[in-house]
Amino acid sequence: MSADSHPASRLDETVHQRVRLGILGILSEADRASFTYLRDALGVTDGNLSAHLQVLADAGLAQADKEFVDRKPRTWVRATRRGRETFKSEMATLTELVTRYGAKKT
Amino acid sequence: MSADSHPASRLDETVHQRVRLGILGILSEADRASFTYLRDALGVTDGNLSAHLQVLADAGLAQADKEFVDRKPRTWVRATRRGRETFKSEMATLTELVTRYGAKKT
Repeated sequence: MSADSHPASRLDETVHQRVRLGILGILSEADRASFTYLRDALGVTDGNLSAHLQVLADAGLAQADKEFVDRKPRTWVRATRRGRETFKSEMATLTELVTRYGAKKT
Repeated sequence: MSADSHPASRLDETVHQRVRLGILGILSEADRASFTYLRDALGVTDGNLSAHLQVLADAGLAQADKEFVDRKPRTWVRATRRGRETFKSEMATLTELVTRYGAKKT
């Protein structure tokens, strides 16, 4: 077998990490999601979610914007076009993995 | 949506991390694999592979054994029964994810 031939070697940690995978998954179904929705859906703390959003923002995959509703701040998160493409590519590689291993009886 | 309802929140980082996912995938198809085979198939360095094998060993998911062939040491790696079960459970969750997001046109 040649180097890097396994599908797992083509996964990108920026997107593959489970919280970031969840964020981009949710954002692939919605135009935008609130910070609190993402936090509750993924079962993480504020600090944890902020850290993962920063990684996605630094990679140009998602962006957060603060809005004021009734003078209360609300943070909305969107995936960038590159974020959607990168997520799609991750899903393609995961599909290869589950096709190869998923239906196996042990 | 209630907390922890997203499939990504049920992924376990011990198995989800891409190199460890690759190791357990290869070991799910073989009784055992050599250290060098895993290293080349996954495109990682010796040090990186060793570190990930240690994480899997500490979690009771895989074990490494050294054998001497023509007085040269060779390290063989196997998945434990728990390792196989944990990998199967990860594949089930990834199947949910790709079923939900994989076929989406963007």
